Parts: sequence; C-alpha cells; structure tokens
Amino acid sequence: MIYLDNAATTKPSEAAFKAAAQAVECFANPSSLYGPGLEAQKLIEKSKGIIASKLGIDRKNIFFTSGGTEANNTAIFGAAYAKRRLGNRVITTKVEHPSVLEAFKKLGEEGFEVVYVGVDENGIVNMDELEAALNEDTILVSVMHVNNETGMIMPVERIKPMQEKLAPKAMLHCDCVQSFGKLPVLPKKWGADMVSISAHKIRGFKGCGALYVRDAKIRPLIFGGEQQQGLRPGTENVAGILAFGAAAQECDCDNSRLLKFRAEFEDEIKKNIDNVIINGTAKNNSGSVINISFLGIKAEILLHALEKHEIYVSTGSACSSHKPQPSHVLTAMGKSREEIAGAVRMSFIEPLEREELIYTVEAIKKEVNTIRRYMR
Amino acid sequence: MIYLDNAATTKPSEAAFKAAAQAVECFANPSSLYGPGLEAQKLIEKSKGIIASKLGIDRKNIFFTSGGTEANNTAIFGAAYAKRRLGNRVITTKVEHPSVLEAFKKLGEEGFEVVYVGVDENGIVNMDELEAALNEDTILVSVMHVNNETGMIMPVERIKPMQEKLAPKAMLHCDCVQSFGKLPVLPKKWGADMVSISAHKIRGFKGCGALYVRDAKIRPLIFGGEQQQGLRPGTENVAGILAFGAAAQECDCDNSRLLKFRAEFEDEIKKNIDNVIINGTAKNNSGSVINISFLGIKAEILLHALEKHEIYVSTGSACSSHKPQPSHVLTAMGKSREEIAGAVRMSFIEPLEREELIYTVEAIKKEVNTIRRYMR
Repeated sequence: MIYLDNAATTKPSEAAFKAAAQAVECFANPSSLYGPGLEAQKLIEKSKGIIASKLGIDRKNIFFTSGGTEANNTAIFGAAYAKRRLGNRVITTKVEHPSVLEAFKKLGEEGFEVVYVGVDENGIVNMDELEAALNEDTILVSVMHVNNETGMIMPVERIKPMQEKLAPKAMLHCDCVQSFGKLPVLPKKWGADMVSISAHKIRGFKGCGALYVRDAKIRPLIFGGEQQQGLRPGTENVAGILAFGAAAQECDCDNSRLLKFRAEFEDEIKKNIDNVIINGTAKNNSGSVINISFLGIKAEILLHALEKHEIYVSTGSACSSHKPQPSHVLTAMGKSREEIAGAVRMSFIEPLEREELIYTVEAIKKEVNTIRRYMR
Repeated sequence: MIYLDNAATTKPSEAAFKAAAQAVECFANPSSLYGPGLEAQKLIEKSKGIIASKLGIDRKNIFFTSGGTEANNTAIFGAAYAKRRLGNRVITTKVEHPSVLEAFKKLGEEGFEVVYVGVDENGIVNMDELEAALNEDTILVSVMHVNNETGMIMPVERIKPMQEKLAPKAMLHCDCVQSFGKLPVLPKKWGADMVSISAHKIRGFKGCGALYVRDAKIRPLIFGGEQQQGLRPGTENVAGILAFGAAAQECDCDNSRLLKFRAEFEDEIKKNIDNVIINGTAKNNSGSVINISFLGIKAEILLHALEKHEIYVSTGSACSSHKPQPSHVLTAMGKSREEIAGAVRMSFIEPLEREELIYTVEAIKKEVNTIRRYMR
C-alpha cells in the first residue's frame, strides 16, 4: 500500500499508539482528587509541554480540542463574540479549510462583515488585498499557515505588523493544522494570538487537536465543568492527548527532506507525463503536498485507477470529498475548469520512500495514458 | 485497587481497546473516496448500529461528539437557537450536570427565560413544578435520566405527555450519560427528541460521546466539512467511535445486579457505621451510585484516607471537583451543611465484586471512626 494522502490523515505511529495505550492503565478522570487522577493530569501536562515546546510557547496557553475543526471554530467564534463590541469586520482568505470558511459564513449570517481575501495564481494570499481590508473596525484576521490542497506557505509573519498599525483591535488566528510538526510554527514570532493544530495529521489519532491562545479572553464554544480553565470543559481525551504528545515528540519541524522529495516527485512527473500543470510552486511550499492537474482527465477516475495499484491519492480536501463542487482553492487561484477537473493531490509524511515515488509515477503514467486514450 | 468512582470515568474494557486498535490499521480518513476510506466509514456505521440498537432507534439519528459535554451543549444550544423564533422559555432542573447547567446559564445571559425546576428530598425532579413551568412559549426542556451524584432516576417518560399538551413547540432533551448501557434508555418510548450519551462511562474511551437527534433540524455547534450530515463536522474520532461501539455491545442495560449490589452496600454501611445518611433512595435508583453522608466528617478527608487503602471514591462530580462550592445536587435536595460536607459518592460498574464491597466498608468504618475521633 502506497499511501499518499497524508494531508487527509496519517497512520498513527507506534509511539502514539503506545502512549494511547497508557491511558488504559492510567484511566482515572484527570479531574479526580485522588492520586490516579493527578497522575492522569500529569500525563496530560507532559503532552501539553511537548506540544508547547514545539510551538515555542508556555503550556498554560494550550487548550485541547476534539480536532482541528473544533480548534478553528473555537478560535473564530471565540474571538468574534469576545470582541463583538469593539468592531464588526472579520477577515479571512478564500482558500481556508471548510472549518474556517463555514465558521466565517455563519458569522456573516449573524451580521458580521466578512471579507474574503484572494490569492495569487500560486495560491499565496494577496497581501496588498489583506492590507486594504484591515481597518479600525476589524476584530479578527484568520489566515492559514499551509494550504491543505497545495502545500503553499502563507506569509503569516507579515500580517501582525500591518494589523497592529491598521487594525489594532484585531486578533490574529492561524490554522496550522497542515504545518505543525512539519515546519516551524512560531506563534510568538508571528505575533499570532491563536493557532490551531491537529494530532491526526502528524501520526497521532483522529479526535484530538489543540488551540494555542495567547490570552484566554475568548468566549468558549462549549460550556460545562472546570476543565482547561473553563475555556474547553469536558473530560479530557486522555488517550488522544497522550498520543498527540508522543507524535509531536517525533516531529523535528524540518521540512527540508519533504521539499527534496516533492521536488523529485515533480521532476519525475514532468519527465514522464505530458500535459501536466503543477498547482502552486516548489518555492514557498511546505513540501508535504503536491497538487497536479493532469489535463484531459477527470481526477476521480485517476484516483480509482490508482487504487488498483494500491496507491491512494485524493482529489482535494477529504472534508468536502462528497461535495460535487470544484475545489474552492484552485478556483481562487484562477485555474481553468479543465485544470480543476484533472487535479490530484498527493501528500507526504516521513518516512519518505524513493521506491514508492518511482512506482507511483510509473503507475500514474500508465493510468493517465489509458484514461486519455479512452477519453479521446 | 478498588475503584469506586465509575460515575466519573471507567477503565476501558479489553474489547474497547481492541476495537480502538483496529483504527490504527484501518486508519484512512472515513471521508476519503477510495476503499480504505470506505472501510473506515463502514466500521463507524457498524458502531453506530450497535449504539442505535441499544437505544431502539435508527442509526441515521446518531451523531458522534467529543463526549457528553459536547453532546449536551449541541442539544441545548442547537435546539434553543433553532427554535428561538417560536418562543423564549427554556426549562431544566436544578440537579443537572454542569455541561447542562452552564449551557442554560449562557442562554439566560443571551436573553432566554430560563426556569430551573427543583427536586424533592430524594433528588427526584418535582413534576408538578415542571408542569407549572411548561407554557406555549417553551421551546426546550432538558431533564437528565439518572443523576450523576445520587443515581436517582427521573421520571423522564412522564414529561412528553405533559409537554405535548402545555408546551407543544418544545423539544425534549435527556442527558443519559449516567444511564446509557446500565438501564434501558428509550428515546422513542419517552418521546425524547434528543438524548446524550458518553463512551467513557461504560468502559469506552474518554473523548467520544454521541447525541441522538430525532429530527436533525437543530443548529450545529461546530461548522466545517460535510461529515455527519453537517450537524457535526470534523474528521471522526474513529478509534473512539469503534471503542464506543464495542463497549456498548457488552452492556445489557439491565441494572438488577447493580441494584442488588447497591442494596448490599447500603446494608453493610448501616450495619457497621452510625450517623450516616443515604442521599437518595434505593427505590428509583439506577443502582450505579450510592451517595452517603458521614456526619461529623469532611468528605475530602475520608477520600484521601481511603486512598491509603487503594480505595477510590469521590465527593461528587469530577467535573467540579476543584470547585470549593457545596454540591448543587445535595443543596437542591435540601440537605444540611453537615450532610453535604460529609457526602461521599461511590459508583459502580460491572463486574461487581462482593469482596471489594466488604473490604471497602471495613476501611470506611475504620477511617470514619479515626476522623470522627480526631475532629471531636
């Protein structure tokens, strides 16, 4: 099995599994007052510490959630509702994940003024447009770090200086679900107020994510007990949290090998197959994603053809895979109908195997040729 | 280790662990279009089927959440916001879990008229008071099935007939986190529109719960992808869901053994220790909880004294264990300060061991006598 859909989800690592298994033995409720409860709490704190150190922040600013979607929702609704009296404009980009876009859509329905900033032909957020959108009335800016469909890195470090000048009341949120663990995610350096991350994109388990909040004055999304400073109540997902810590521990946040692998992939594809367009660039790429349009074919047909070779790729975000609409990311990049229809995403995580790359390109070549012959 | 805090959380069963481990092999994103994705989706559906059959409902009405807290919040905010135009009154009881009470408190802050119905001296909701609170303006009634501090069963099956007559626009929600798997939870029979359940209370894992929604016209709490009919987006917690199904499969929803065990516990306590008051009654009890006030002592001191014997009990809900306030449940029951200060909760799940019961009562007797001597 050659699994090239690591932007959708990853196989949990052995370390993550072992850490999760620890939660079976150390099963007490972390809020319980007796020893085993405190032990569970200590294990959570340890995980939090690992994650916090990867982010270069204090662990008291980490709040565990049920995943990236909840982390994004908590950040967006939490900031918008907390700052509502200070202003009405909220800004994001056209290429965010559905868990950001749908939250902003909801804010729009509730009367907030939502501005969607566009991207250039490579999928990088248009910074002039963002600058023009910032105003005194702006209370929230949400820009993703790495795009899930193209792997493109947004210049998030350039936002805060602009924002401080033009939109001093705004909070800055970065969805770092696709970048955390793979390249440096540095909320302090960027001046980000909130950062979302997810466990299952870095070989942890599905059902666990976290939100970094610099200053916990956002409104909670979920109300209940006293857990996590009241910002995210509910008994903690101990197994998921321990696995998240173990998975994060194994990440070196150095994407140089990913970039090399992606470059080689691009070379091999271009060498072997004609009429392909790479969506996005090698420059400013995380290296974890390559998005390729095979002109003249329908991506879904190629996806299923590759399945026979036990190669798994995707046509875009898994979260909207059952939606028949064309990719909003490629649309925002100004791609043609044909380019979007033939776009396949392959996404990587370490360990990277060169043989898999060669085998995959061979299979793609064969299947693309067959489909093209058939469609002519 | 004698663990008598199963209302706080339970040790995951072997079957649950094995089911969760399956998610490591079958790790694809359940929304992915290729075979392994569909397999993951099938496993989720299987789990959903098991849970649905225990509830006597169709599995399309099950929505997985990150736990009981999120399920309760989704039901309460989801119904209140969806029905806002039809009325403004929302009703609950004074003895609900914090995840219900805090959600209602929030609704109150937002302008909803919140009515908190009281309970009798045994902790059973006052049905006359509930009836009097129901009116044309009522859009939501939330009453728990089994109370987490006392084990008392509320007559939830009597609510719908009243409500249909007096509050026809209202939705009925029951928090069944403490009852599901232990005694029959029958939303259809009760006429409940929404029912919350949780995995880690029945030997599943923390971080997974579910909400039954009869008619999915409630507003989501979390916005994002297309998962779970859009009512609860986000990549599903596959490991947690599979474990939930496996844990539910092992439940026979027959509390007769629990009741017998609880009765024996009560007998032994009364036989061996004087000046005790049982909070709640054997009648109308789930059998899974016994709440005992040891007069003249502070419960927390007894809790830590029992820890030396490796016996783990609690002073009430784990979710508010770090809150220095007296139990809101016992307060609502009209208990005195002394009764509340000395109240200890012991909670059971199968397998039940008679030897543990005897050992525990012996230890309690010894420690209670010591503490009482010391406090005199």
